[in-house]
Amino acid sequence: EGAGVSTTHRIAVIPGDGIGPEVVAEAEKVLEAACVPAGIALEKKSFPLGAEHWLATGQTLPEETLEEIRDQDAILFGAVGAAPGDTRIPSGLIERDILLKLRFSLDHYVNLRPSELFPGTVSPLRDPGEVDFVVVREGTEGPYAGNGGVLRQGTDQEIATEVSLNTAHGVRRLVRFAFELANSRERKKLTLVHKHNVLVNAGHLYQRTVNAMAAEYPDVTVDYLHVDAVTIFMTTDPSRFDVLVTDNLFGDIITDLAGAITGGIGLAPCGNINADRTAPSMFEPVHGSAPDIAGQQKANPVATILAGAMMLEHLGHPEQAEQIRGAVRHDLEVNGVQARSTAKIGDAIVAALQA
Amino acid sequence: EGAGVSTTHRIAVIPGDGIGPEVVAEAEKVLEAACVPAGIALEKKSFPLGAEHWLATGQTLPEETLEEIRDQDAILFGAVGAAPGDTRIPSGLIERDILLKLRFSLDHYVNLRPSELFPGTVSPLRDPGEVDFVVVREGTEGPYAGNGGVLRQGTDQEIATEVSLNTAHGVRRLVRFAFELANSRERKKLTLVHKHNVLVNAGHLYQRTVNAMAAEYPDVTVDYLHVDAVTIFMTTDPSRFDVLVTDNLFGDIITDLAGAITGGIGLAPCGNINADRTAPSMFEPVHGSAPDIAGQQKANPVATILAGAMMLEHLGHPEQAEQIRGAVRHDLEVNGVQARSTAKIGDAIVAALQA
Ligand SMILES: CC(C)[C@H](C(=O)O)[C@@H](O)C(=O)O
Ligand SMILES: CC(C)[C@H](C(=O)O)[C@@H](O)C(=O)O
Repeated sequence: EGAGVSTTHRIAVIPGDGIGPEVVAEAEKVLEAACVPAGIALEKKSFPLGAEHWLATGQTLPEETLEEIRDQDAILFGAVGAAPGDTRIPSGLIERDILLKLRFSLDHYVNLRPSELFPGTVSPLRDPGEVDFVVVREGTEGPYAGNGGVLRQGTDQEIATEVSLNTAHGVRRLVRFAFELANSRERKKLTLVHKHNVLVNAGHLYQRTVNAMAAEYPDVTVDYLHVDAVTIFMTTDPSRFDVLVTDNLFGDIITDLAGAITGGIGLAPCGNINADRTAPSMFEPVHGSAPDIAGQQKANPVATILAGAMMLEHLGHPEQAEQIRGAVRHDLEVNGVQARSTAKIGDAIVAALQA
Repeated sequence: EGAGVSTTHRIAVIPGDGIGPEVVAEAEKVLEAACVPAGIALEKKSFPLGAEHWLATGQTLPEETLEEIRDQDAILFGAVGAAPGDTRIPSGLIERDILLKLRFSLDHYVNLRPSELFPGTVSPLRDPGEVDFVVVREGTEGPYAGNGGVLRQGTDQEIATEVSLNTAHGVRRLVRFAFELANSRERKKLTLVHKHNVLVNAGHLYQRTVNAMAAEYPDVTVDYLHVDAVTIFMTTDPSRFDVLVTDNLFGDIITDLAGAITGGIGLAPCGNINADRTAPSMFEPVHGSAPDIAGQQKANPVATILAGAMMLEHLGHPEQAEQIRGAVRHDLEVNGVQARSTAKIGDAIVAALQA
């Protein structure tokens, strides 16, 4: 599309708690700057969800709100969660009843997390090499299914279980997405990450699914690594990775590590994708609400800005998405990771975009 | 004890596959050099278990062999496991039916993994600082319980489950060990590692157990980190850690990462401890059988040599254990990580011990 032709997308905005509102404000600024010249209109509707909202109303994510959100084209999400010390809020309640509820209800089966070491950023690794990979994390099953329970709680005989649920349906659609992505990239490499020598049931379902689909993608090189070995290669040879596909919990763990080695999760975006488009997809930073630095303009908005770019790409505007990424790259190249306020970083990226 | 007074310990030696026999040979050399002058006799009995043995005999770990091993005072274990490409051996069979069977049958509920950045070694981190922590990993339950199953395998309706089993009994004895260890160390810091915002059942059992026991250890500072956050701090600030306590699977993952940031798992030892001493404990390197470099004298025996030191400490000889550690430190300081044959490294450590 060009200027003059107008497309409208309805966006649910969930700023959330802590630094969420600050970083979302910058992402909105940058999205605006990328969209307006291209005739793309974002019709935004804000939803006040999070720990603060729960304290005020006793509500996490009511059915009506979920249905309103389901009606939008995409979701821009900041971060939710109480301060670790806040005893008024049961641990994990906000994360489970808002963030995970959105992922599961809207069938965000691909949790997509690209990692790139941008010029101007500082890796804690001595010699990271060129890092540019994507983790395709499962988002709607596995150990996150909320299955399991407690028997005889608080006694000497207590038993607590966690059940990881994995289905052919869930694994296939995930692995399909990962193969398509690998096939579209230059190196065309796909690494399955699991622990199938111990978790034989789930692990072999993943391995059989990858093996069966590999024949359809003769150009894609496939390999396998145990999750423990992945943590080693992430620190000693991260440039070996291209596309990684893995379950919900392993994906959670290795993407925080991936964020760390590429300069911090302040730069790492995440797309919660419903690739069948039966419900809106959701875009967020990998980081959390960081209550300790909230309201101080100390948070880095780049992760959320890059999540905004992923959102534009998902909505059919790869050109504008690439403009945002280019502006982020440019800003990091010029200004590096010097301390600037959240708004200053957002403004600089807008300026780079308009230059 | 001094020279002249003689103590005898019966040691089961399981060299295993790949580089196992090479690294175990060096550990035996070093143990001999530390024990003989102190009048400690190691009466060794070798057990030919592993992938090669299974191919030749169809046996992994028969009951009679397990009972013979149970009769010893301690176990020195190399590594077991087939080459990744070897299709004659079902994936993970050897690891589960030998290594995990030993850990579970002999009630090795503490999987103890110290991480220290020795002088002369090279961390992949730009600025690791002083690293000296211990992971107390659970060894007999959690996701490793072998629970779960597959329904409708190979169909569109396949469901595969993994059940993590956690008991008050199992968690308490582990956490007790971790508190005692933290209390005995200079910094007296204990970090619980879990994911209790998502895995609420198991996570809260761990958290409640730690909270309840903390009152008995007023000098120990206790904190909590999600496993994903641990991977970040391991790469950005590993010197913050002192003692970490965690479940079987999280422990598996973070100790490979810990090995990587302290110069590689070629240096990382592991004690599988039955702290009630109802069965022999087992000492092994964290690394595996590395079939690709087997028989070439390329493996680093330091992890197994340090495992030997842990074994001596467990058998009541902390002085000899410290001598071995001192010799390893000295050798690394003088010779660093320059390429030497497996035997050369063992010989140099023996020489340092005798100097
Ligand atoms: C907040 C938490 C539930 C969440 C997760 O574990 O998925 C977060 O760590 C993430 O990675 O998005
Ligand atoms: C070989 C495998 C079963 C084992 C484990 O997962 O415990 C290994 O990775 C380890 O850490 O000792």
